Amino acid sequence: MDEQLLKEQLQRKIDLKTKPHGALGQFEDLALQIGMIQQTLSPRISEPALLVFAADHGVTEEGVSLYPKEVTWQMVLNFVSGGAAINVFCRKNGIRLKVVDAGVDYDFPPGIPVIPAKIRYGSRNMRLEPAMTFAECEQAMLKGAELVRAEADLGCNTLGFGEMGIGNTSPSSLLMHCFTGLSVAECTGSGTGVQGEGLKRKIALLEEISLKYHPATPLETLATFGGLEIAMMVGAMLEAYRRRMILLIDGFIASAALLTACQFEPGIMQNCVFCHTSQEQGHEKLLRYLGAEPLLHMRMRLGEGTGAAAALPLVELAVAFLNEMASFEEAGVANKDTPDQIMS
Amino acid sequence: MDEQLLKEQLQRKIDLKTKPHGALGQFEDLALQIGMIQQTLSPRISEPALLVFAADHGVTEEGVSLYPKEVTWQMVLNFVSGGAAINVFCRKNGIRLKVVDAGVDYDFPPGIPVIPAKIRYGSRNMRLEPAMTFAECEQAMLKGAELVRAEADLGCNTLGFGEMGIGNTSPSSLLMHCFTGLSVAECTGSGTGVQGEGLKRKIALLEEISLKYHPATPLETLATFGGLEIAMMVGAMLEAYRRRMILLIDGFIASAALLTACQFEPGIMQNCVFCHTSQEQGHEKLLRYLGAEPLLHMRMRLGEGTGAAAALPLVELAVAFLNEMASFEEAGVANKDTPDQIMS
Repeated sequence: MDEQLLKEQLQRKIDLKTKPHGALGQFEDLALQIGMIQQTLSPRISEPALLVFAADHGVTEEGVSLYPKEVTWQMVLNFVSGGAAINVFCRKNGIRLKVVDAGVDYDFPPGIPVIPAKIRYGSRNMRLEPAMTFAECEQAMLKGAELVRAEADLGCNTLGFGEMGIGNTSPSSLLMHCFTGLSVAECTGSGTGVQGEGLKRKIALLEEISLKYHPATPLETLATFGGLEIAMMVGAMLEAYRRRMILLIDGFIASAALLTACQFEPGIMQNCVFCHTSQEQGHEKLLRYLGAEPLLHMRMRLGEGTGAAAALPLVELAVAFLNEMASFEEAGVANKDTPDQIMS
Repeated sequence: MDEQLLKEQLQRKIDLKTKPHGALGQFEDLALQIGMIQQTLSPRISEPALLVFAADHGVTEEGVSLYPKEVTWQMVLNFVSGGAAINVFCRKNGIRLKVVDAGVDYDFPPGIPVIPAKIRYGSRNMRLEPAMTFAECEQAMLKGAELVRAEADLGCNTLGFGEMGIGNTSPSSLLMHCFTGLSVAECTGSGTGVQGEGLKRKIALLEEISLKYHPATPLETLATFGGLEIAMMVGAMLEAYRRRMILLIDGFIASAALLTACQFEPGIMQNCVFCHTSQEQGHEKLLRYLGAEPLLHMRMRLGEGTGAAAALPLVELAVAFLNEMASFEEAGVANKDTPDQIMS
């Protein structure tokens, strides 16, 4: 269908619902966006899923996180046993959760429900060498795309992206710095809680790393400063866009991955629902750079995809009001624009 | 149980969950608040319900709304047939919805599922005389309390408050003006869409009305400037507080009712979850006055309780994480505060 015509028809359908014009605010924008993504006046959310990509980061050797890197695999086991925040949020909101080992520095026992996609036992320490080779980075992206195809085959049209990786705010800050041109300091925050002198050291380290390399392409930038779970997310996001899915974008790390994906496919923004503003200090700036208006502002800074999982019910309400609310005419309610429709 | 001890135990339970300290932001505040309301470390949401109070307002004779007052009864019939936004939101989020005729200027056909609680066929035109007599106002409040007792008998411990009444931003603005001391202009907004000259006329009218009376008590203020649905909401809110329920506060009109209830029982604030910031211009100021941090900021301005219904899943997530998330110890995850707990 003609894009402009569909947009007008969707807007008209929204405007004729029994409510003052625009009174559902962001829900109306969401309904319009989702109708456009799915190219229909009657969109639906089908088999919503969330992929959590886990990996370790060589740069943790430089002391960028308050938590030891062992927490990455420990938290993966926590996901497996259902005890993490993302488990609770996904269960409550009817989201199928899958955990992907994109590059955790640990051998998980066989048979546990973690999707094996390990490219490497953690990325390299980017203070000393690029975090990934081109080949590793591309392999991660391809694997991400493959995982999304599997979700699509299960009927999923709405996909959230989460991550777990001690140290992964550092690569995210550097990707943001490279692609937005904002200073390293503006892009760097506390992560899991680094503050004061520790935060100053983190910023100095990231500045040093940023000056060491001169990547010429988005792929080279991602390979140099990224992480295995971030590269896999980028590939997954690009595939989700190609499949016309709704992309539920979580916090700082997921947004940095999306910013990277935008370098390959700027149109991907049309499919993104920005789920929340993280407390991680660079996130609000990144959202502003992207022109994104997130759904939630609840001072979260947990990652795992928790913001995306928390926001899904709002996305579902947007679709539900578009499909289920009565129009002024159907309900016999007087509309200020059409006073002749007053029932009497 | 000792309040301070319970609070410390709840905070400790929250802090030991597998996440960085404070990383669930407002969800953590909510979990603490709900634990304190229910006086337990393991709260639950039981039989959530939402009451929509509908009434007409004599002041609509002065042209304060873009919509004719017939829209009030027409929208009640829309609620009954399930086509309004609040029907969709409640269905989607598992909320039992009840519609109360607190004072609609219309005789509904018998047998339809509207709770008959009509005090009067609309409030009086407060430009000419007080909106209600003391007796009418008290009767409305008592009826509101009775309706909440019925919900409590059904096992409900979480109650949302919505309203429908063409013209009801005007009484809400005047109640806000009286109880906060802010100017009438600061308390007055567009309602369903009055703008420009129309808004100036609305403000001038409300200023005129505010100068005509000098109520000495909260009850007199409510009777003079309120509305039948607002008075019934005030009574309902006070009873919900006495029953230790969680009160889901919606937008501008519900917040004005709550502000009024605060004059009777300041402690009621402890039980309130502020669900969203309305676009109605006085609402943000009113929330700031109350010291409230609302959950949603989605540019809604519809009323009906839609903000409360939309926010319930967030409240449920707060309770779920408190009950279901693993602690660092249970999950065998290293906590930065207790490095000796690292699993190896």
